[in-house]
Amino acid sequence: MTVKRLPIKLPRGFQSSGICAGIKQEVNRKDLGLIYSKNDLAVGGVYTQNKFPSAHVQYCRDITPAGNIRAFIVNSGNANAATGQKGIEANQLMVEALSKHLGINADQVLTSSTGIIGHDFPVQVIKSAMPSLISELTDDGFDFASAIMTTDLKEKTSVQQISIEGQDYSVVGFAKGSGMINPNMATMLAYVLTDAPLPLSNIQEITRKVNSRSFNCISVDGDTSTNDSFYLASSNSVSALTDSELAIVTSGIEAVAVDLAKQIAGDGEGAEHLIEVTVSKGPSEAIVRKVLDSILNSSLVKTAINGNDPNWGRILMAAGNGLSVMEYPENSAISIKIQDTPVFTKGEPVSYSEASLSNAMSDFNVHIEVDLHNGTHSLKGWGCDFSDEYVRINADYST
Amino acid sequence: MTVKRLPIKLPRGFQSSGICAGIKQEVNRKDLGLIYSKNDLAVGGVYTQNKFPSAHVQYCRDITPAGNIRAFIVNSGNANAATGQKGIEANQLMVEALSKHLGINADQVLTSSTGIIGHDFPVQVIKSAMPSLISELTDDGFDFASAIMTTDLKEKTSVQQISIEGQDYSVVGFAKGSGMINPNMATMLAYVLTDAPLPLSNIQEITRKVNSRSFNCISVDGDTSTNDSFYLASSNSVSALTDSELAIVTSGIEAVAVDLAKQIAGDGEGAEHLIEVTVSKGPSEAIVRKVLDSILNSSLVKTAINGNDPNWGRILMAAGNGLSVMEYPENSAISIKIQDTPVFTKGEPVSYSEASLSNAMSDFNVHIEVDLHNGTHSLKGWGCDFSDEYVRINADYST
Repeated sequence: MTVKRLPIKLPRGFQSSGICAGIKQEVNRKDLGLIYSKNDLAVGGVYTQNKFPSAHVQYCRDITPAGNIRAFIVNSGNANAATGQKGIEANQLMVEALSKHLGINADQVLTSSTGIIGHDFPVQVIKSAMPSLISELTDDGFDFASAIMTTDLKEKTSVQQISIEGQDYSVVGFAKGSGMINPNMATMLAYVLTDAPLPLSNIQEITRKVNSRSFNCISVDGDTSTNDSFYLASSNSVSALTDSELAIVTSGIEAVAVDLAKQIAGDGEGAEHLIEVTVSKGPSEAIVRKVLDSILNSSLVKTAINGNDPNWGRILMAAGNGLSVMEYPENSAISIKIQDTPVFTKGEPVSYSEASLSNAMSDFNVHIEVDLHNGTHSLKGWGCDFSDEYVRINADYST
Repeated sequence: MTVKRLPIKLPRGFQSSGICAGIKQEVNRKDLGLIYSKNDLAVGGVYTQNKFPSAHVQYCRDITPAGNIRAFIVNSGNANAATGQKGIEANQLMVEALSKHLGINADQVLTSSTGIIGHDFPVQVIKSAMPSLISELTDDGFDFASAIMTTDLKEKTSVQQISIEGQDYSVVGFAKGSGMINPNMATMLAYVLTDAPLPLSNIQEITRKVNSRSFNCISVDGDTSTNDSFYLASSNSVSALTDSELAIVTSGIEAVAVDLAKQIAGDGEGAEHLIEVTVSKGPSEAIVRKVLDSILNSSLVKTAINGNDPNWGRILMAAGNGLSVMEYPENSAISIKIQDTPVFTKGEPVSYSEASLSNAMSDFNVHIEVDLHNGTHSLKGWGCDFSDEYVRINADYST
């Protein structure tokens, strides 16, 4: 595999590295990453809702939000999930070893793991790799982005510049995704770093808000992992911002998070299409989210899109399936468009050219719009189609 | 395609037929079926919860339960769903034409449709075929079982004999399934017919109860169709039964329904394995059902089983995913067995031979057991693995 190396300049105050520590079985694949700051970072975090969270999730969610974080260590190749008490202890050993190497306190270290579930966590391998990991720290983020990949086909990075009163700041994000991606998070790790000013008192709220409009709106396969985590870190903690300044910073962070979320969906295992679904004019956020999730998670919709098949009946079926658990009027007169072509309008099929719509669906980007004609709430989300490649990837992942 | 023709003797009082009416595009495939009784039938029915139910569901659920049903007409090849007002009218036309041909009242006819969603319903084709359909009526149910198939690979039938006070009765069931099969029903049609005595006052309750332990415990792809319907019909309506007689009859009906449900799951589109999941010792029916559904619907579990891969971490992930929406203690010490082999016991991984367990999983039947160690409720359900064949079948279903 040859990887084109694109430099990703980190925001001021951040350094990172990514190395081959020997956790992954494949030779020469990076599997250990570090984000480091010489000064304290303000960090917010949101985590999987899965009832069997990994050791790192159990550890980190007790720490964030925090104003004194100095390092994130991340490994791919082993999830440290379903590893029982041994896994908790291995995570703790990793924290202690890293804090000693960096000369910081244990509670200034956050950890993340991704990879196979239920295998002994290779903490000794990771400890042995720490001196190299630290010596490789640089202002460039590309190796870190590589190190957190599992079945991802490419690094996921995103950069935005923002400006406040003539001063420029950057927002840089990294993510890994691919399998087990679902609303309410995914086997997804994401890190959004910025040197823009952020008050510690707002950071958790911003993390939650951004997450609800980005990573919580994507689905690859409907499974929600034990390990999902999204962190927002600022190297420029301030006591307060004006509302308009906060809006500028939040919008830069959200743009990076949405871009990463779309990259995760479009690089879903075996994906041949990025599916964007817009559900509009619903009576509540909960209802539009349910319809969105149901369409993005429908195997029948996903396979139809794989075949460039404008089978809008499956979209209707999926919407009605999601709504089945909600208080909602039956046979409500909804409208559906695919690639801007109306296929079902206010409860009645409309005629269209199946051949030309199918042709329009051969584009990588497929856009489905569902108008509920029943309120003011809207939501956009992303997923991918279901290909036979997905099955091949997942039938032998652990062997 | 050659089909081995097995005679299926119907219970006393029932006749059925199945013919090629020309609804399906494939030449010489049966697509129209009829169940008929010369005397009134007691019938219970349960239907999809999808908020965009087909025309037939909207029609039938207003009629059942009923004590005067004489005919079921069923077509495959067109779902008459998402067909708007025209679809409702087409269903009504079909009812009126059939009742006229049979010399019965319109409210003695039940209808079911399965097939593609959103296409105009070919009611004229069906009307033209009615004389043949009626003239082909016989005591044998095989042609009916063929006529209701869509992507099913084989007819699904089941027969049980029961005996009450020296008198023998039979219970005969027919079903079609394959895609869009999910708990809370599926693109699934099922008919269980019996000449055993049943009080009309009990029939709906028995239909619901049997459904909750059979068809509501299966999943092929997590999608719930617009058309799902399960009917229970007795040609021997009585005013009352003793509790023990009712238990005998119910258990015969349930055995047929469970057998049909397993056939549906095992014949899921592209299925190479029938997966049986047992969730035991949960604190409530709702919780064990949620865990069951989540495991049966997990694409990652289904692909792992396709690859004979004892990746129990995905089973744990799926269980935790299902529980994420329930009040349930985190990191509860559950146990998991695959093919009777313990792989995770009371919250800790246990060692086992991956090679020999993988070998055991190459059997068509794969059994997963999850013990929650937290109560007295148990539930069993069935699903199938996810093969690349599933994707191929569904990528071009409508073209």
